[in-house]
Amino acid sequence: MIMIFTGNGKGKTTAAFGQTIRALGHGKRVSIIQFIKGPWVSGEYKFFDRIKLNKKNFKLVRAGKGFVKILGDKLPFSTHKNAAVKALNLAKKEINSKKWDLIILDEINVAVNLKLLNEKKVLDTLKCIYLCPCKSVSGPRRSAPTVILTGRNAPKSFIKEADLVTEMKEIKHPFQKRELAQESIDY
Amino acid sequence: MIMIFTGNGKGKTTAAFGQTIRALGHGKRVSIIQFIKGPWVSGEYKFFDRIKLNKKNFKLVRAGKGFVKILGDKLPFSTHKNAAVKALNLAKKEINSKKWDLIILDEINVAVNLKLLNEKKVLDTLKCIYLCPCKSVSGPRRSAPTVILTGRNAPKSFIKEADLVTEMKEIKHPFQKRELAQESIDY
Repeated sequence: MIMIFTGNGKGKTTAAFGQTIRALGHGKRVSIIQFIKGPWVSGEYKFFDRIKLNKKNFKLVRAGKGFVKILGDKLPFSTHKNAAVKALNLAKKEINSKKWDLIILDEINVAVNLKLLNEKKVLDTLKCIYLCPCKSVSGPRRSAPTVILTGRNAPKSFIKEADLVTEMKEIKHPFQKRELAQESIDY
Repeated sequence: MIMIFTGNGKGKTTAAFGQTIRALGHGKRVSIIQFIKGPWVSGEYKFFDRIKLNKKNFKLVRAGKGFVKILGDKLPFSTHKNAAVKALNLAKKEINSKKWDLIILDEINVAVNLKLLNEKKVLDTLKCIYLCPCKSVSGPRRSAPTVILTGRNAPKSFIKEADLVTEMKEIKHPFQKRELAQESIDY
């Protein structure tokens, strides 16, 4: 199953982490690969760092290099691009490893939009899910890993491929009043 | 701060639980009160039951009696109503207790829509946040607890009162193809 959380509103990464604890609660194994997001220490990172789950059940890789071309980013574009390509290769490996029930590719939509990743190559990676040898009789994707893609402006080709898509639509946000991002609310 | 996750798409309760671990990661204290949802054991419940956080930092109360008038519900309406009123009283107590940084009122929008709760009474409860004695100099709500309301069809009066509102809009969902709710995906 492919799931997408997109849109301009708050709640995309947040819902992916909610999905993570739901899956862990049911004894599933979860791997999270974060694109763009790098050294910045988020509340969700701190939480999982503190509770120390078994590494076989949970893995969180912050594979990005931080904001791209905004908010003081001075890294060469190629550095961001290399990090994203490396993260996509890791995603492919994780999907094919059969070790995980849920794989979250956080902000991958943004990485495609920023041209850090090639849309077609991501789509090919996602198609691995169909080819997963663990497919059940009742439905081709039922026992294959669930993959969640997050980030604004999900490409149409991803939406076409997905089973479940939610648009997180901003109705009201303190940013509209120029307030800054708040710790424990926004990261 | 009042935050609302509403809309017909997947990700509302899910995002609230994501927000929970983000806040916990930053050392905040979180209280979750679930309306409607009762004995049903969700993945998120199992997860927190297993990791056993300090009770001063985390509390999850499943205060509902389950689905109302659908999916085989045979309870009298008054039973659901009493449970919701009791849950709202608990919410009021929690908001006033100054013990929590984040309070989640899960599915409270649905409880109002089903007439289990009076809209005005919920609004009055939310207004306690403004009166919270812990208000800071920089902004009246900054140090008061954040309250998240989830559930479809949030009343307009709640949206007016809120600081942040996201509509989780269904673009695609397996339910559209009449597939049943799946463990670890939907609950």
